[in-house]
Amino acid sequence: MNITLEQAEKLIKTAKEKAKALDTKMNIAIVDAGANLVAFVRMDGAWLGSLDIAIKKAKTARYFDMNTGSIGELSQPGESLFNIEHSNNGLITFPGGVPIKNGKGEIIGAIGVSGSSVENDHEVADAGAKAI
Amino acid sequence: MNITLEQAEKLIKTAKEKAKALDTKMNIAIVDAGANLVAFVRMDGAWLGSLDIAIKKAKTARYFDMNTGSIGELSQPGESLFNIEHSNNGLITFPGGVPIKNGKGEIIGAIGVSGSSVENDHEVADAGAKAI
Amino acid sequence: MNITLEQAEKLIKTAKEKAKALDTKMNIAIVDAGANLVAFVRMDGAWLGSLDIAIKKAKTARYFDMNTGSIGELSQPGESLFNIEHSNNGLITFPGGVPIKNGKGEIIGAIGVSGSSVENDHEVADAGAKAI
Amino acid sequence: MNITLEQAEKLIKTAKEKAKALDTKMNIAIVDAGANLVAFVRMDGAWLGSLDIAIKKAKTARYFDMNTGSIGELSQPGESLFNIEHSNNGLITFPGGVPIKNGKGEIIGAIGVSGSSVENDHEVADAGAKAI
Repeated sequence: MNITLEQAEKLIKTAKEKAKALDTKMNIAIVDAGANLVAFVRMDGAWLGSLDIAIKKAKTARYFDMNTGSIGELSQPGESLFNIEHSNNGLITFPGGVPIKNGKGEIIGAIGVSGSSVENDHEVADAGAKAI
Repeated sequence: MNITLEQAEKLIKTAKEKAKALDTKMNIAIVDAGANLVAFVRMDGAWLGSLDIAIKKAKTARYFDMNTGSIGELSQPGESLFNIEHSNNGLITFPGGVPIKNGKGEIIGAIGVSGSSVENDHEVADAGAKAI
Repeated sequence: MNITLEQAEKLIKTAKEKAKALDTKMNIAIVDAGANLVAFVRMDGAWLGSLDIAIKKAKTARYFDMNTGSIGELSQPGESLFNIEHSNNGLITFPGGVPIKNGKGEIIGAIGVSGSSVENDHEVADAGAKAI
Repeated sequence: MNITLEQAEKLIKTAKEKAKALDTKMNIAIVDAGANLVAFVRMDGAWLGSLDIAIKKAKTARYFDMNTGSIGELSQPGESLFNIEHSNNGLITFPGGVPIKNGKGEIIGAIGVSGSSVENDHEVADAGAKAI
């Protein structure tokens, strides 16, 4: 139950189109079920610092099988997972990371997007994840 | 005064049973008095990201000889140990890490559990620690 | 196609018995198909430094789907893979890491063993891998 | 003078075709003139450990504006750059990394390929670099 490169390339194509429709420049990363990178693109002019963030968002979404923004809510000061970001060589816990599910609802990987507002990042990631 | 592998395996067995009773899937780590890993298991389907967190919880509990949740209270913004997580290659300071004591009350290691709510994580860790 | 915890525990049991038969004290690690840790034990009195080596041997064997000793031959000075150890946060390329295959010959994980001579390390790892 | 994503994707397409023609499964990475990742693909079934090696080969080729194999010759025991691999968070100095030049001969990035023999790795990287 692992995403294929062909699937990953289809998701990235969809995510890039959504990024252009929103007039944004994104870093887009896809990891497999083992949280290992399968495919990555950085659109021309996208923030350099978002390269690592996109990859970490994809990994974080697969590490915990949920959208990265959900972890962010639980890791605020005083909340139950405060400072969870110090694990796993660094997590990114704001929106933009989304698990990828196959037709049976099984998680086969995750997508991470970074380069604009977290709302746009999530919208692009979600569009990609749904293109499976 | 160090936990043995036989003891560690007994604790992990008890912790796994508690995890199943709570209908959870856990990563469970045991470190010795030197804070070095003695035994580890990841239950099928448990979060991948909890692998590192379970080990860090066990280490954190032994580093300071207290439950990880207690350190978490002291490391909130404005509190005395704010951002202590930056030490020791990363601490985890929410519940789920518990020191392990022998019959004389001496600390011989620690257990770290991650994979569910912090309440469940702590309950499983505590069940394991008490099985010594 | 991923090793289960039950399988990993069976392999570790077999490897421990082989280690005892050889009068050695071993660190034994099992990773899954994604190269993530599934189970680990450190036998009482085993070298502390072998903890990390056992885990890195298991990862290295899965990273390249071959025995770690084979990579070691290719990475000697003047050979084609010299200094490959600088990748992947550190590889271990002497014997003691062995891929784990299921009944169909598919690789579902790997085992890494460290704590004695490399000949003994390999013999214990191989005994474990064959217990699947 | 920087490679565009469109160019990077064209190079990856060519490199993938060459990899298939050689009956190999490759990890392929493209970095820009700043040595930052632009695009990456891991072909289905390619070695997991080659993920990091492909990226490090691309970076190494751009760090020193030469084929990685050339650096490898200079970094053998007794040679002038012995152990240069310890710099830059790890270099890979065997073949498979090639600078990418535009029509004017200016270096605009580099390609790194890993997944087979170093001869095949270099052949695929070279085919990619020439597709600019």
